Amino acid sequence: MNNPNPAKTDTGAALLARSYAAQSATSGLAPFQFARRKPDPRDVLIEIRYCGVCHTDIHFVRNDWGISLYPMVPGHEIVGVVRECGKEVGRFKPGDTVGVGCLVDSCGVCDNCRAGLQQYCAGMVLTYSAYEKDGKTITYGGYSNVIVVKEAFVVKIAENLPLDRVAPLLCAGITTYSPLKTWQVRPGHKVGVLGLGGLGHMAVKFAASLGAEVSVLSRSPGKETDALRLGAHRFLRTTDDAQAKMGAGYFDFIIDTVACKHDYNLPLNMLNTDGTLICLGAPPEPIELQAFPLLFQRRRVVGSLIGGLPETQEMLDYCAAKNITSDVELINMKDIERAYERMERSDVKYRFVIDMSSL
Amino acid sequence: MNNPNPAKTDTGAALLARSYAAQSATSGLAPFQFARRKPDPRDVLIEIRYCGVCHTDIHFVRNDWGISLYPMVPGHEIVGVVRECGKEVGRFKPGDTVGVGCLVDSCGVCDNCRAGLQQYCAGMVLTYSAYEKDGKTITYGGYSNVIVVKEAFVVKIAENLPLDRVAPLLCAGITTYSPLKTWQVRPGHKVGVLGLGGLGHMAVKFAASLGAEVSVLSRSPGKETDALRLGAHRFLRTTDDAQAKMGAGYFDFIIDTVACKHDYNLPLNMLNTDGTLICLGAPPEPIELQAFPLLFQRRRVVGSLIGGLPETQEMLDYCAAKNITSDVELINMKDIERAYERMERSDVKYRFVIDMSSL
Repeated sequence: MNNPNPAKTDTGAALLARSYAAQSATSGLAPFQFARRKPDPRDVLIEIRYCGVCHTDIHFVRNDWGISLYPMVPGHEIVGVVRECGKEVGRFKPGDTVGVGCLVDSCGVCDNCRAGLQQYCAGMVLTYSAYEKDGKTITYGGYSNVIVVKEAFVVKIAENLPLDRVAPLLCAGITTYSPLKTWQVRPGHKVGVLGLGGLGHMAVKFAASLGAEVSVLSRSPGKETDALRLGAHRFLRTTDDAQAKMGAGYFDFIIDTVACKHDYNLPLNMLNTDGTLICLGAPPEPIELQAFPLLFQRRRVVGSLIGGLPETQEMLDYCAAKNITSDVELINMKDIERAYERMERSDVKYRFVIDMSSL
Repeated sequence: MNNPNPAKTDTGAALLARSYAAQSATSGLAPFQFARRKPDPRDVLIEIRYCGVCHTDIHFVRNDWGISLYPMVPGHEIVGVVRECGKEVGRFKPGDTVGVGCLVDSCGVCDNCRAGLQQYCAGMVLTYSAYEKDGKTITYGGYSNVIVVKEAFVVKIAENLPLDRVAPLLCAGITTYSPLKTWQVRPGHKVGVLGLGGLGHMAVKFAASLGAEVSVLSRSPGKETDALRLGAHRFLRTTDDAQAKMGAGYFDFIIDTVACKHDYNLPLNMLNTDGTLICLGAPPEPIELQAFPLLFQRRRVVGSLIGGLPETQEMLDYCAAKNITSDVELINMKDIERAYERMERSDVKYRFVIDMSSL
């Protein structure tokens, strides 16, 4: 439980934070204390109330991508209440309900930053398992009772929304909202959502709220009832040839939320001329596309990664206006490992959220 | 040399056509006579002057894609002079210089046809090795002295252009022009062209003429001089790490004209945020993309196939106004097999065109 970030240990006014952390790829998660930095003039000190559990947390904890830094405090779907603001902070005051997503810093001067696309900045700093700009301090995420974040990377949350159900909007929400806005999905569009999990269920809600005709494409017939309840107009089993054919050349967009190896040509062939396959998952295996279905209907395969700060705020405001939140299962901090196990079996409807009062 | 299309043999007024044809996947090409249909009221009878030689011709002659119909008269880069018009033909008169590309018919009523995108019509009829709408008459292409084509699939060619150099515009030209227009390439855009062959050299000419900054990406340092002569501003060896890195995250568009198996992640990684990889070649192997480079800069991988009739006419008018034609090597009909051999070694600058007076 000692603090491995020497840059922080001697800060007299630094704040002792409680958390759950992984000490290595095989250690699992356990209680961990460390010092958060003393708020700078532009920082906001946030008491964390809830933190969503993203599948990315599992990949990072286990070092699946080979880029993990330990000790690791995961969590990038953070909501809480402002306790203290640095003196230059203008947008927030103590007591405000706020959120922090996947990013806590970026270079601020590149084309992407100036366009509000901080997620594509080469110098962006992830909320956890990354180095701060000093190149040596590891960032610690939201499985914790407090966090100190630059004002520019904090977003406002409207008071009317249930805070636990807002947490997943900070990653699953913006990840699905952003491409729908980038590609200007609107009434008249036929949208397919491949995979009905944390991302998929948000994609259904957003696409339906934007007026599109929404179909859920899934291997699991058991998800039909939920798909329709969440706002989908149609359910297609991807394992059922007849239904898959019904959708051939049908969709303007398919949002592919599947994060493990799968057949990309199935959704590709279900797209209309100029149809767009939006890839949100990052399987370690390459995405394999047949050339003919790509060329013969001028189809498009595009990527998208979370969203920038202005768009994240826009999404939260949109959710407040439309009363959109995530479907969640609230858990205690100590049950995190069991939650991971259930997530690996896709056994969650549709996002675990940690109640930080249980820490 | 007998005609295998029974529907045509008994047409008293049908026209005896001379050609070179393949009788099977292994026969090679040899002289062949057959009857062209008597022009319908909406047909145009064209004396073919030149026909370009597309790499697709080789694939079809050898049945590489398993969809070939024999006897096969290849050729879909056809230019010639109108000899006779059906009585309902309004746009052409005898003596007009005209062209025919990859298509000779389509359903005419689907969304794609109504949008002028006949190439994406499910009922489109290829200029050769396809069945006419009657489901039994095989289409015969441009390695021939005459052709009879529906007026709607004939395009006008301005008198000021050298006709032999126009022929490749009907396939290589429109294939590269169409995506540049679809994606609105304009001054300020940085465009890479991967592969400098029949398609690539036209992509360079068009992209430069549209005001973009053009770079040729090629394995062959010997192509640098030509690349610059054709209008490129920069030449990058794809085998040279340093130069490839110079281009990392640099391009708004890369036009990938390579038709054989190759690494798609190289051009993908050279794209900027929102950059677009335009795939024009159809290797039999799947296109393999790493997910991270796609997601982390919101990049796009898109297909494109030739162009519709309105856009083909627009392209020819644009070429007439800008004095753009293909770089060609003129050959005699009897030398077609030798031309194929040289094409397979990429030994052509940059398109073989058959002088049909040699037939």
